[in-house]
Amino acid sequence: MYNTNLKTFLTSNLDIDEKAVLSLVEKCKVKKIKKNEFLLKVNEHCKHTFFVEKGLLRQYSIDKKGKEHILSFAPENWFVTDRESSYFNLPSSYFIQALEDSQVVLLDASFIQLLSEEIKSFTDFNNKLLHNHIRHLQKRINLLLSASAEDRYLQFVTMYPDILLRVPQTMVASYLGITPESLSRVRKELARKNFNQ
Amino acid sequence: MYNTNLKTFLTSNLDIDEKAVLSLVEKCKVKKIKKNEFLLKVNEHCKHTFFVEKGLLRQYSIDKKGKEHILSFAPENWFVTDRESSYFNLPSSYFIQALEDSQVVLLDASFIQLLSEEIKSFTDFNNKLLHNHIRHLQKRINLLLSASAEDRYLQFVTMYPDILLRVPQTMVASYLGITPESLSRVRKELARKNFNQ
Repeated sequence: MYNTNLKTFLTSNLDIDEKAVLSLVEKCKVKKIKKNEFLLKVNEHCKHTFFVEKGLLRQYSIDKKGKEHILSFAPENWFVTDRESSYFNLPSSYFIQALEDSQVVLLDASFIQLLSEEIKSFTDFNNKLLHNHIRHLQKRINLLLSASAEDRYLQFVTMYPDILLRVPQTMVASYLGITPESLSRVRKELARKNFNQ
Repeated sequence: MYNTNLKTFLTSNLDIDEKAVLSLVEKCKVKKIKKNEFLLKVNEHCKHTFFVEKGLLRQYSIDKKGKEHILSFAPENWFVTDRESSYFNLPSSYFIQALEDSQVVLLDASFIQLLSEEIKSFTDFNNKLLHNHIRHLQKRINLLLSASAEDRYLQFVTMYPDILLRVPQTMVASYLGITPESLSRVRKELARKNFNQ
């Protein structure tokens, strides 16, 4: 069984027994992808929400000058998708790429529909997921507008505790919207503060 | 009748006749606020979604150094709220303030519940509103990470066509995450390009 994490995620968040969730989850396709392979490329239509069973992915864009900007990381038990593309049926502005060998469960609109028909509490839970997404995006905008490089970094470490060890520093800098040099300065400064405490 | 715009908004987006919408909308409180007054302050709990009937509001935060950062503007027919505070019952990180004498309709959780019970298409419509919110926030993050001051300004003009004429330039710069000096340079440069065309 590949989709053990999704099963646990659903049974711990929804009012549903394990047998019922099993018969639902078995309907989903699982995809294995190698490091550096893509689940989505710019201008493609995103047809799925991906639940990460194993591995690590990133969602990013490339600007006019060819520079990459990371919108999000998705480690185990996270969802990743381009909601703009999938919900509004638009060509995507983003890439979704594996940063490690990964396994994802493919959830499509018909599966979401099935969940909302079969599980009474699903609509509320889905609503909560959407609000949580909005909450994180809003916080990110506020941090990009107002926070120092150090505060952004500290918030990143809280949100993605183990990702620092799994991705290159240039990607962390890209996510934070700062240069790799600034990130290096912030880390040295924090190390100095901790050493002096 | 104060809430004419909300009535039009609901009848044009939902499968509901005018009489039914009228009896629903009449249940909502309308609030008039003067320029510079607040609907929400930092650390308060946000209890409503505000639908702007008339006027203009802004949602903003203040950083450690006392600098203001504008998360959004809300002119007529827009909603404004702090979903993090209202949905998750948390103290707010934001202010919501009138920039002009305004009138807002106060929508609370019980009204949203009533709409979802009375109008079959409301759940789907609310879902669409949430996805649209996510789409805008995601786009804003991508612009803050990757776009030049000029591109951010042009996107702002498309999204809020008449707001440039209604707020001080310092607020536009605050929304864009650039200095007022950069904004001034961008505007001069765009004027020069248009003049030379």
